[in-house]
Amino acid sequence: MSYFRTDIRAMAGYAPGQQPGGGIFIKLNTNENPYPCSAKVLTAIGRAAAAGLQRYPDPSASAFRALASVLHKETVAGIGPEWILCGNGSDDLLTIITRALVGTGETLRHTNPSYILYDTLAQIQEAVCQVVDYRKDWSLDQQFTAPDDRLRLAILANPNSPSGTQIEPEQVLKIANALPCPLLVDEAYADFANSDCLSLVAENEKILVTRTLSKSYALAGLRFGYLVAQPQMIEQFSKVKDSYNCDALAIAGATAAIGDQAWLVKTRTAILATRERLTGALAQLGFQCTPSQANFVWCQHPVKPAEALYQRLKADGVLVRYLHYPRWEPGLRISVGTDEQIDALLTLLKRYGLG
Amino acid sequence: MSYFRTDIRAMAGYAPGQQPGGGIFIKLNTNENPYPCSAKVLTAIGRAAAAGLQRYPDPSASAFRALASVLHKETVAGIGPEWILCGNGSDDLLTIITRALVGTGETLRHTNPSYILYDTLAQIQEAVCQVVDYRKDWSLDQQFTAPDDRLRLAILANPNSPSGTQIEPEQVLKIANALPCPLLVDEAYADFANSDCLSLVAENEKILVTRTLSKSYALAGLRFGYLVAQPQMIEQFSKVKDSYNCDALAIAGATAAIGDQAWLVKTRTAILATRERLTGALAQLGFQCTPSQANFVWCQHPVKPAEALYQRLKADGVLVRYLHYPRWEPGLRISVGTDEQIDALLTLLKRYGLG
Repeated sequence: MSYFRTDIRAMAGYAPGQQPGGGIFIKLNTNENPYPCSAKVLTAIGRAAAAGLQRYPDPSASAFRALASVLHKETVAGIGPEWILCGNGSDDLLTIITRALVGTGETLRHTNPSYILYDTLAQIQEAVCQVVDYRKDWSLDQQFTAPDDRLRLAILANPNSPSGTQIEPEQVLKIANALPCPLLVDEAYADFANSDCLSLVAENEKILVTRTLSKSYALAGLRFGYLVAQPQMIEQFSKVKDSYNCDALAIAGATAAIGDQAWLVKTRTAILATRERLTGALAQLGFQCTPSQANFVWCQHPVKPAEALYQRLKADGVLVRYLHYPRWEPGLRISVGTDEQIDALLTLLKRYGLG
Repeated sequence: MSYFRTDIRAMAGYAPGQQPGGGIFIKLNTNENPYPCSAKVLTAIGRAAAAGLQRYPDPSASAFRALASVLHKETVAGIGPEWILCGNGSDDLLTIITRALVGTGETLRHTNPSYILYDTLAQIQEAVCQVVDYRKDWSLDQQFTAPDDRLRLAILANPNSPSGTQIEPEQVLKIANALPCPLLVDEAYADFANSDCLSLVAENEKILVTRTLSKSYALAGLRFGYLVAQPQMIEQFSKVKDSYNCDALAIAGATAAIGDQAWLVKTRTAILATRERLTGALAQLGFQCTPSQANFVWCQHPVKPAEALYQRLKADGVLVRYLHYPRWEPGLRISVGTDEQIDALLTLLKRYGLG
């Protein structure tokens, strides 16, 4: 296969969490929202489909950007549609940002344990990945802002996965100010957290914040995310995106989704209540749980190995995510499902003799 | 803006054809299908939406790939789902292929006049673009297969845009055999042509054929395309795609679309009849028309400048595409609309004193 670039041939490729084809599974492995999306989303999709799909979609997703800038008006000083770039999921935006900033042989810095896609994106660019380990308490030391001539992009998932922990905005601003390059704050889970970094975008053009509708808006199947950054940054990133990266149904559905904030508040409240209950119950079963600001809980058991638990749960029809990062004890990342799903999980764990 | 890669800063970015926001326009500028898609597509989308969007879509679009491999079974010897890679429009596949094959400073070769996105993709990779001009009769000379140590990818739009002309499969096979690198045959318009290159994929692993559902299946708004190539090639390209590049509604709609071949035959027949009528009428008005195998016609008028005609038509509510390529006389690319739309266009052209 000598046609392919050396780094592509050497790559394993990013393996997404398992999506079981058949069988009845309780799926707590990819941090999906267990609730169906707002009914207004389905109405908007139906209307867009009925209007016809033969025309190209709006390449700049103007309707979404207009509404999103209103939604974030109180938070981001001076925001308008030109502060927003839409993507086919926030993965699309991570790709766009990496391609625009990081060339062959240049450096992308991110944390460990975190979202392993960042490594894949660097590899595709033939870039060098600089991985900064979290401290054991999931705080970040100064290595993350260490000077480096080749550094072009730093990425911080916040809240982080798999830990669900948050670096507070004051510290993120300090990090951005200390870095020589843009800082991408991947806020896929921010709607489940107590704070976020959106307001910082107005303070420093180096701060780029991405959001996804996959998790909090229950739209993983629709593929829609957006980047908030200062207009002069958005203008450059726009050059790298596919002209029609978001389809007409996704634009319509996503716009309706952010227009229904009452649905978001209600769903968030339910998920946070279940998260608290799950965390408490896991602790009672002897797990060490990291307090989470996301829609999942990272836990390890001092006696039962994580991989064996994962396998046994899978055999019993419950999928959780088993994750083993370099220089880190393996653990389970359990998505916050419905109360019924979490009850089923806990019942199984008790049956395995835990607690 | 020193954060961005040099080539990104220097880029103008690809400008898609105008999508008018308001007003009543007859839109003959971006080669969309003038007819609504198959009703089965809308049914499938409705069903997928009703099933819920909270889960991630199938990352490999298995349902589509299974059906597409059946559809092309008679044409491509040995084809199975593993010969197919799905994309968020065929632009997504062009991006994936370029990223997988062409590194910084390496060469991508394509023709002129053709799809200008190829240039943009090369620029984003900091690659060198080698542009081979068509002969005046739209045939291709041997320069397209000239040896070059840095050459990593050659792209041939077939049928080509803006000309609507076709290089016959026998010649494409010769070109592929002569090239040191893969040949991407961009068959966005192949469903409107008399021949295509799909069967060649089985004969030479260097031949990569992309298709889109935007034009012939009237699904530009849905964003769906696919690549047909030998499995060992698909395996490498898969590493570069976003895990969830196609959303659940697009997968469902696209699968239903290729499942309704009766709709395709009927719509194709209508468009080809209108294309013939349009070509004849334009000739009667004094235009030089290139015989087209696509859903558009490329024409130039010996007396009336193309840009003035474009502007006047636009002022009168009809959008066609004015295109001016290097070393080539400017012309108009007119998409084949409905008979009523084409009648409206022809009435205006007569009113301008043509014919």
